[in-house]
Amino acid sequence: MSSAFDIVVAGGGIAGLTAGLTAARLGRKTLVLTGDVLGGQLLSINKIDGYPGFPDGIPGYDLCPMAQEQAAAAGAEFAMTEVAALGPEGDGWHIATASGEEHEARAVIIATGTALKKLGVPGEERLFGKGVSHCASCDAPIMKGRVVAVVGGGDSAAQEALTLAEFAARVVIVHRGGALSAQAAYRDAATGHPKIELSFNTVVEEILGEASVAGVRLRDTGSGRVRDMDLAGVFAYIGMAPNTDFLAKRLRLDAEGRIATDGALRTGLPGVLAAGSVRSGWHGRAVMSAGDGAAAAISADQCLGSGAWLKD
Amino acid sequence: MSSAFDIVVAGGGIAGLTAGLTAARLGRKTLVLTGDVLGGQLLSINKIDGYPGFPDGIPGYDLCPMAQEQAAAAGAEFAMTEVAALGPEGDGWHIATASGEEHEARAVIIATGTALKKLGVPGEERLFGKGVSHCASCDAPIMKGRVVAVVGGGDSAAQEALTLAEFAARVVIVHRGGALSAQAAYRDAATGHPKIELSFNTVVEEILGEASVAGVRLRDTGSGRVRDMDLAGVFAYIGMAPNTDFLAKRLRLDAEGRIATDGALRTGLPGVLAAGSVRSGWHGRAVMSAGDGAAAAISADQCLGSGAWLKD
Repeated sequence: MSSAFDIVVAGGGIAGLTAGLTAARLGRKTLVLTGDVLGGQLLSINKIDGYPGFPDGIPGYDLCPMAQEQAAAAGAEFAMTEVAALGPEGDGWHIATASGEEHEARAVIIATGTALKKLGVPGEERLFGKGVSHCASCDAPIMKGRVVAVVGGGDSAAQEALTLAEFAARVVIVHRGGALSAQAAYRDAATGHPKIELSFNTVVEEILGEASVAGVRLRDTGSGRVRDMDLAGVFAYIGMAPNTDFLAKRLRLDAEGRIATDGALRTGLPGVLAAGSVRSGWHGRAVMSAGDGAAAAISADQCLGSGAWLKD
Repeated sequence: MSSAFDIVVAGGGIAGLTAGLTAARLGRKTLVLTGDVLGGQLLSINKIDGYPGFPDGIPGYDLCPMAQEQAAAAGAEFAMTEVAALGPEGDGWHIATASGEEHEARAVIIATGTALKKLGVPGEERLFGKGVSHCASCDAPIMKGRVVAVVGGGDSAAQEALTLAEFAARVVIVHRGGALSAQAAYRDAATGHPKIELSFNTVVEEILGEASVAGVRLRDTGSGRVRDMDLAGVFAYIGMAPNTDFLAKRLRLDAEGRIATDGALRTGLPGVLAAGSVRSGWHGRAVMSAGDGAAAAISADQCLGSGAWLKD
């Protein structure tokens, strides 16, 4: 089955949804491919504090359904699948989805975001879903009264440690560096929290346990000393890897694997734009992703209008 | 009186407030100079529809106070004045305000936005506040049951015509062009509205009246024919002029008078960034201004951290 759109948006996070909302409001026939689950990285964020308009914060998993409702009301269409392949066709693009549909689009906005990096240590794959988790807000309740490790030292690590500390008996932040790099608000909250313990200059060497996580093997990077710690959960927040596999090296990526764009969020390919955390130069804020989505949709609309980007 | 900040933000619209919010959350000592009135261009917008998180829309005059509350909670300080002059001092900047305070800052974020252009016709200055207005949402109620003109054909003109039509007996959109250039959602709503009348290829030559607006003199740009129309209000939305006078030509501006930036929103001057509608490449969406504010604050923070931008 094939259908034709003005603009196809790949990604169901706040960047993709805002791109869909903005494109539909501009009168463009728009399809948003959201992937299996709406919400992108925000899904696992219990409370977004820096998003203007919500003085009490807003759960990440609430913001995206609202944005989708707005986009749908504006006329955007949705499919819960992802892009499997992207290729040129006529004066636009051909998009094959993971669920087998095929679409044509005059412009494509890539807002596929990023996925959490894995630790890459023994036990991680085997115990995933059995105490190894990437979603603190999903799994915090089952950690009630137990000890858990959060691996990492940035915003996500600090935020998720705070989320887990609402339920867990104790949260150990295991960080390779010597200090938290999280923004001041999160850093101070985590540092001062009675249930949160900081273990700096430390890496996870192995996740231990048979049927479920029973502990971690930690190594002090200074002394080299190795010790085992009993605990029930491991939540790794050591950075993100951009979701660009489907591009098959069609686009120029930066050193971190993010898509390079110009100021109007155009990539090197005519009619292809990038928005949100998948693009180079993005900084980890939900409101910036939303702004990016709007900017990419307006750029796409302008180029469709002028024909400036259509291929010969 | 002089005080020192890490970051001074010039502007109290959604870009400036989000910059203040983000900078304060990053732990930077931050001052936001809001001007006399909080809210910037959003102040006069009755309902923002494309801002993710508000499926029912949000009044522009509600969004900014919420963002200010968030920024204040994060530790940002505020002053209700504007920048009168900006000059280098030590390894940062010296800011003189219109109310006579002086501040020092290591980085400055310019988010001063834009002001509505005037028509530049006889009667406009004399009758300002007496039927000539730049704020439909403020003055719509006093136009109840009366005839008003909205001048312009873009998003603002269409939006404000819709706002006025809730009160006025009839709204005449007077537009120099031959069609509305507003985005589809606003264009269609205005075109189909029973109280809204479209007068294309027409310009206002004079605003008539003694103590208050009594009518307008219109000229058809095709035939050259001039006619007078009786009405009580004139609301001009013919575009925006960036607020950059205080810069005294220190910064590079584009053809529209907007500040040129790189992808990280840095201007040509070390430690000076620009965000929102005052910068080149911005598109008229509130969420993009908010995203810009966050991006500028993060850029400023990174440069302060690395010292990369401090002058010698």
